[in-house]
Amino acid sequence: MAALHLLSPAGFRASGVHAGIKTTQAPDIGLLICDTPATAAAAFTTNQVVAAPVVVGKKHIAHGSLRGVVVNSGNANACTGKQGEKDAYRMCQLAGTIARCAPIQILPSSTGIIGHPMPMAKIERGIVEAGQYLGNGLEHANLFADAIMTTDLKRKTAAVHFSVGTQRIVIAGVCKGSGMIGPRLAVPHATMLAFLTTDAQIAAPLLRKLLNAAAIKSFNAVTVDDHASTNDTACILASGASGARIASARLAKAFAAALDEVCQSLAHQIAADGEGATKVVAITVQKARSEQEAQLMARAIANSPLVKCAMNGNDPNWGRILSAAGMTAAKFDPARAALKLQGTVVFSRGRPVPFEPAAVSASLRGPEVQVELTCNLGGGSATCWTCDLSKSYVTINADYHT
Amino acid sequence: MAALHLLSPAGFRASGVHAGIKTTQAPDIGLLICDTPATAAAAFTTNQVVAAPVVVGKKHIAHGSLRGVVVNSGNANACTGKQGEKDAYRMCQLAGTIARCAPIQILPSSTGIIGHPMPMAKIERGIVEAGQYLGNGLEHANLFADAIMTTDLKRKTAAVHFSVGTQRIVIAGVCKGSGMIGPRLAVPHATMLAFLTTDAQIAAPLLRKLLNAAAIKSFNAVTVDDHASTNDTACILASGASGARIASARLAKAFAAALDEVCQSLAHQIAADGEGATKVVAITVQKARSEQEAQLMARAIANSPLVKCAMNGNDPNWGRILSAAGMTAAKFDPARAALKLQGTVVFSRGRPVPFEPAAVSASLRGPEVQVELTCNLGGGSATCWTCDLSKSYVTINADYHT
Repeated sequence: MAALHLLSPAGFRASGVHAGIKTTQAPDIGLLICDTPATAAAAFTTNQVVAAPVVVGKKHIAHGSLRGVVVNSGNANACTGKQGEKDAYRMCQLAGTIARCAPIQILPSSTGIIGHPMPMAKIERGIVEAGQYLGNGLEHANLFADAIMTTDLKRKTAAVHFSVGTQRIVIAGVCKGSGMIGPRLAVPHATMLAFLTTDAQIAAPLLRKLLNAAAIKSFNAVTVDDHASTNDTACILASGASGARIASARLAKAFAAALDEVCQSLAHQIAADGEGATKVVAITVQKARSEQEAQLMARAIANSPLVKCAMNGNDPNWGRILSAAGMTAAKFDPARAALKLQGTVVFSRGRPVPFEPAAVSASLRGPEVQVELTCNLGGGSATCWTCDLSKSYVTINADYHT
Repeated sequence: MAALHLLSPAGFRASGVHAGIKTTQAPDIGLLICDTPATAAAAFTTNQVVAAPVVVGKKHIAHGSLRGVVVNSGNANACTGKQGEKDAYRMCQLAGTIARCAPIQILPSSTGIIGHPMPMAKIERGIVEAGQYLGNGLEHANLFADAIMTTDLKRKTAAVHFSVGTQRIVIAGVCKGSGMIGPRLAVPHATMLAFLTTDAQIAAPLLRKLLNAAAIKSFNAVTVDDHASTNDTACILASGASGARIASARLAKAFAAALDEVCQSLAHQIAADGEGATKVVAITVQKARSEQEAQLMARAIANSPLVKCAMNGNDPNWGRILSAAGMTAAKFDPARAALKLQGTVVFSRGRPVPFEPAAVSASLRGPEVQVELTCNLGGGSATCWTCDLSKSYVTINADYHT
């Protein structure tokens, strides 16, 4: 079987073209079109500073149905006032002409620099051109994925399938995100954009519920710099073309599990491609008083620049991890807690546990580090993904604008 | 008049010696002794992971009176269990022998690596030696200030005087803090240590109230990496030796103003000496719904790695500032807000304001950058100090332990 991709679910076509918004030669306009009206759900940034395409997109998703998504990279269309909203709507008009639908059936999305007017002449030409290259092959999926990237070094895609009787359902997705990552979509935060496709038949309210639940444990659990972007968006389109209907609790559970898998894979890829990242750091907090408190602590550890620098230096400086856990509003008692770094216990119930620093440091050198904090206070657990903080992060972000 | 320093208030002696806790030749044991019982107040970290000297110090400050402070750098005595508390108490015993008082009359304090047993043989010898070098000259004040430093590059001191009739009152202080800075002493957070002296006569409850109020607008308003330390401590000792009594609301106000000035000077020095800092960034949020909401937003901006990297790159990337303000629980409406960078308006009421990027970038090159965000939502304002995020911060913190 060929590898699954964004356009494996039946009913979708996509394209990506270079319109000259980015200074590189990479694609910067993407179109994703469903041949028929798709059931759709989306989650947006909770930042109070929201980009124009988010303002427009919230209106367009309200009816739970879309024909497609038009997206550009290189300009966030944020803090651009009423003109920005007109520009976002204009993008929907052009994409709607291509998909033969009303503008309201299109979700607009943007990522890039904040506060710059949209270069609409380039964008309009780009959308028209993208309409001429639509297709459903792997190369089309890849061009769309590339068109949403900014400082990302790697394309991020995931896809799974599961069966309902003799019918196969595919869920696939692409996303971007490397810096300004700490999505908190109406449940997430970064500029994180994720676009998901499926050929399942599913009701809009259920799709929305399952997307939100998946986002909490995936996009909202990844942080590079804890900066909720003005543009964060996760959107799923269900074409229904498989003919397989998610009509029972059992099927909803199977769909949710598959959706979780896709979203968590994408979130993990975001952490791995975090600006300047040399490794993924997976932080699991167990036996907290509640899942929410476990999330608070996992996130505080993941966002500590001191912890992230220690990880960059392969430094088993566990005191920084414990003190980050103690900083939040969540209950934490070091006298009851235990901490493992890559499987080695370094702290237990109020006391350091002697370990061989050189060996533990060596164990931190891999592409992924496991941090496991057990609170022994209750039944709540959560996992959060981040990356280390390197000099390259500073270089990338000190020189981005000028 | 000679410059004022920590020991200018009458009644105090101090010293600092090198005991070999730090690997450098710098002083690492400090003693500050008041010749008579001083009225005293202290504020400690709100982190739930508290170092042993904080556990012991909270008991010792409970009666509002101290004879002195014993402090070491190079080891935080944190996450060291019951033995750590015994070690902190032992430090008080030795200092008490020198001051001829009970151990409970001494406040212990430590800063340095977390989770390592205290090298008590060195520390005991160091305290005894420090007792032999006590004095009240500038050189003694400087040695004490140096003894509390860790990654600090600069000694941090401040002092002011004001008059009550014909009597002069001096308030002075020293502090340390460079990384793990984000004090939240029971109102602050980092390892921030601040020790203040005054020769005023003042009641302990009033002294505590004024210290807490001063801390909110100084130590708690400075952040390098938003990491509340296990050891943060601010402590003030009032010898009463001036004979001037703070006995009216008017005098309390004058004392508070002088104390604010000393604490804010120290906090500003912490930001300027933040790990890897090339500049101070002063963030003022005005006309928020409340002072608390102004603080929340100022702090979110100050803690954004993206904003801090932009400042490092002299980059007027104001979208990062606005989006950081929009991330918090505080009400923020970009359509009503205005933002100035070094006096240049870059955003106003929902729209970018055109500016000359090269000129504004040049204006960011100085040792201090003013960021002013006006919300136009109410009467709350707050200022927060931070520093830029440089590659040196990563170097310092990736290589600290190993």
